[in-house]
Amino acid sequence: MAQESRPTLATVAAHAKVSRQTVSNVLNSPEVVLPDTRERVLRAIAELDYRPNVVARQLRTRRSYVLGLRMPPTTDGISGQVLDRFLHALTDEAQRAGLRVMLFTADDDEAEIREYENLRATTGIDGFVLTATHEGDPRTRWLADHDVPFVSFGRPWDDAGTGDGTSHEHAWVDIDGRAGTRAATRHLLDAGHRHIAFLGWPEGSGVGDDRHAGWYEALADAGLAGDAVVHRTMDDGVAQGAAAANRALVRDDVTALVCVSDSIALGALAAVRELATSRPDRAPVAVTGFDDTPVAGAVDLTSVAQPVGDVAARAVELLRAQIDGRPDAVNRQALIEPYLVVRGTTRAPR
Amino acid sequence: MAQESRPTLATVAAHAKVSRQTVSNVLNSPEVVLPDTRERVLRAIAELDYRPNVVARQLRTRRSYVLGLRMPPTTDGISGQVLDRFLHALTDEAQRAGLRVMLFTADDDEAEIREYENLRATTGIDGFVLTATHEGDPRTRWLADHDVPFVSFGRPWDDAGTGDGTSHEHAWVDIDGRAGTRAATRHLLDAGHRHIAFLGWPEGSGVGDDRHAGWYEALADAGLAGDAVVHRTMDDGVAQGAAAANRALVRDDVTALVCVSDSIALGALAAVRELATSRPDRAPVAVTGFDDTPVAGAVDLTSVAQPVGDVAARAVELLRAQIDGRPDAVNRQALIEPYLVVRGTTRAPR
Repeated sequence: MAQESRPTLATVAAHAKVSRQTVSNVLNSPEVVLPDTRERVLRAIAELDYRPNVVARQLRTRRSYVLGLRMPPTTDGISGQVLDRFLHALTDEAQRAGLRVMLFTADDDEAEIREYENLRATTGIDGFVLTATHEGDPRTRWLADHDVPFVSFGRPWDDAGTGDGTSHEHAWVDIDGRAGTRAATRHLLDAGHRHIAFLGWPEGSGVGDDRHAGWYEALADAGLAGDAVVHRTMDDGVAQGAAAANRALVRDDVTALVCVSDSIALGALAAVRELATSRPDRAPVAVTGFDDTPVAGAVDLTSVAQPVGDVAARAVELLRAQIDGRPDAVNRQALIEPYLVVRGTTRAPR
Repeated sequence: MAQESRPTLATVAAHAKVSRQTVSNVLNSPEVVLPDTRERVLRAIAELDYRPNVVARQLRTRRSYVLGLRMPPTTDGISGQVLDRFLHALTDEAQRAGLRVMLFTADDDEAEIREYENLRATTGIDGFVLTATHEGDPRTRWLADHDVPFVSFGRPWDDAGTGDGTSHEHAWVDIDGRAGTRAATRHLLDAGHRHIAFLGWPEGSGVGDDRHAGWYEALADAGLAGDAVVHRTMDDGVAQGAAAANRALVRDDVTALVCVSDSIALGALAAVRELATSRPDRAPVAVTGFDDTPVAGAVDLTSVAQPVGDVAARAVELLRAQIDGRPDAVNRQALIEPYLVVRGTTRAPR
C-alpha cells in the first residue's frame, strides 16, 4: 500500500465533489446523507485509502462502536451449535445498530479477563457480550467493577433455581428453558402419555435445573408428579443419552423421554430404536430434545427451539443503551420464550 | 463511564510504579516486558480506563491488526458447520499471531464490497479473509485493485477443473477435495466394492466438480471407470440426497455411494435403510459423506474431514505477511490434504 501520500478530509471532499462537512457526516452521522452521496464519498475514501478519521472519531467520541465476544468453545459439536447460531444473529443485529463484533479466544475466565484488559487497552472496545455465565462468575464482577458495558446471554445463576433474575443488577438476556420443557411435556401429556421420564444433567447446573423444573411442573399440574422418573448423565453426549435412556426404559410403563439436550435425545433415540427391535411388544417410545440443532431436523426429532435472533436483538439493544450512556432507557433483563418444533419422534402411533 | 478524568501515559506509569517507557512497551512491544510487569501495567490501564493509546498506535503504524471476515451465511445447517468451525480456528490462529477478527454481514458480493469500503473508512481494518469464492468473483478484483491485503478460503475457480491454481495471483488456502473423494473411493474399492456410484451437485460448481474428479480418478485407476454411475441433485439437502440415492440404487449391482456432502449422504443413508427393509435380499449398501460434520459422528457416517485448523493457520500466515509488507516471504497458495474418518456406514458386513 502507498504509505507516501496521506490524503486528508479535503482531498476526499474534492475527489467526491462534495463539501468537507458532507464527508464528515458520512463518517459520523451517515443517516443524514443521501444514499447516492454516501456511496460516492465512501468510494472516494476507498480509492484514496483515507483512514485517519478512525483516529479522529475515536479521539472525539472515545467510542469505537466495537463489541468484544469470546468465541464460544466448541463442545460436542451438537449443542455448541446454538452458540454458533447466536454469533451469526449477533453479528447481524449489531451491524443493524451500527456496531461491529470483534472475536477473541480464552481458555478460562481468568484468561478472558486478561483479554478484556488487553482489548480495552489496545483496541478500545466499547463493551462485551458474555456467554456461559455461571455461579460466582469472576468476569461479571470484573466488568462491573471497571464500569465496562456488558450483557450476558445467560442469567447469573447465583440463586440457581428461582430463575426470575429480578434481583440481579447486570444486563442479561436468556432463554426460558423451564417454559421449553414444560411445553414439551404438555405436548406429550396431550398425546396421551402418562409416564414421561426426564433425562438430565447432574444437579447444580443452572440451565439443567431450569429445564428439569419445567418438566416437573407440567407433570405436577397433571397430578402425575408422584411417579416422576429422572435419570441423570455425567456429561452431555450421545453415548451418555443412550445409557440414561436404557436405565429409564427398564420400567415398562415409561412411554416418553423428555431430554435436556439434543445430544442426550440422539442417544435416547438410538436406545429406543434398539428396544423396538428387541421388544416389539412394547409401545413405541416418544422422545423430545432441546435446542433444535440441525441434527434434530435431520433425524426428525421433536425439539425445543431457542429463538437466538430475538436474544441477539435484545442483547444489542441493552449494550447499545449502556454505551450511549442511557443504561436505564431499557429494561436490563429479558427472558425469551422458546417454542416447540414437533417432528416424527413424538408423532409415532401409540 | 467517567468522561471527566483523562489519564495519561504518565498517570498509568505512576499507578503501576514503572517507567513511561515500560508502559509504552506493554502497548507496542509486549514481548519485551516481563509477564508480571506486563500484567501490572495492563491492570493499571484497566483501572484508570486509559485508552488514547489506540489512537496513538494507529496514527504511528497506520495498522489496526484487525482482520475482517464476512460471517458465512448459514445454509442447511449441516454443511454450513464447516465454515463455523473455520471461524473458531481462525479466531484462535489470528490471536496467536497478534491479530483480531472482526465480523460483518452482507447479503451478496456487492454488499460485501460496500462493507469493505465502510470498514476501511471507519474501522481501519488491515485485511480480509474471504470465503465462498466463485468464478468471476468481483470481491477479489476489488480488493486487488485497491491494494488491500486479503486471503481466501477457497480457490478462484475461474479455470474450474484444473484446480492446480498455480497461475493465480492472489493468496488462497483450500482443501484438496479431489484427494478426499479419491481416498473415500479407494477405501470402498479395498473393501471389495466394484460398483460405486457418485451422488453429486450440478456440474459447474468448482468444489463439486473437484470432488467428482477424485471419485472418477480412483475408479479409472482400478480400471472401473467404464461403468461409472453418477446422479446429481439440484441442491444440497437431505431430501435431495435420498432421491438421488433411490435413482442410483435402481441398479442392483450398485453396493456403495460416494456422496459430495454429509447432507446428501444423510439422505442416501435413509434411502439405504428403507431399501434394506423392502429388499432384504440385496447386499448392504455402503455410504460415505464429505465434511465430517457433527451429524456424521452422530449417525456413524464415514466422511472426509477438512482440517480447518491447518487452513486457518495458513490463512493467517499469508495475511500477516501481506500486512507486514513481505507478501513474497511465503508461498501464496496452499492446498491442504483432507483425511477419511472411517465409521459404521462403510463397515457393514458384505
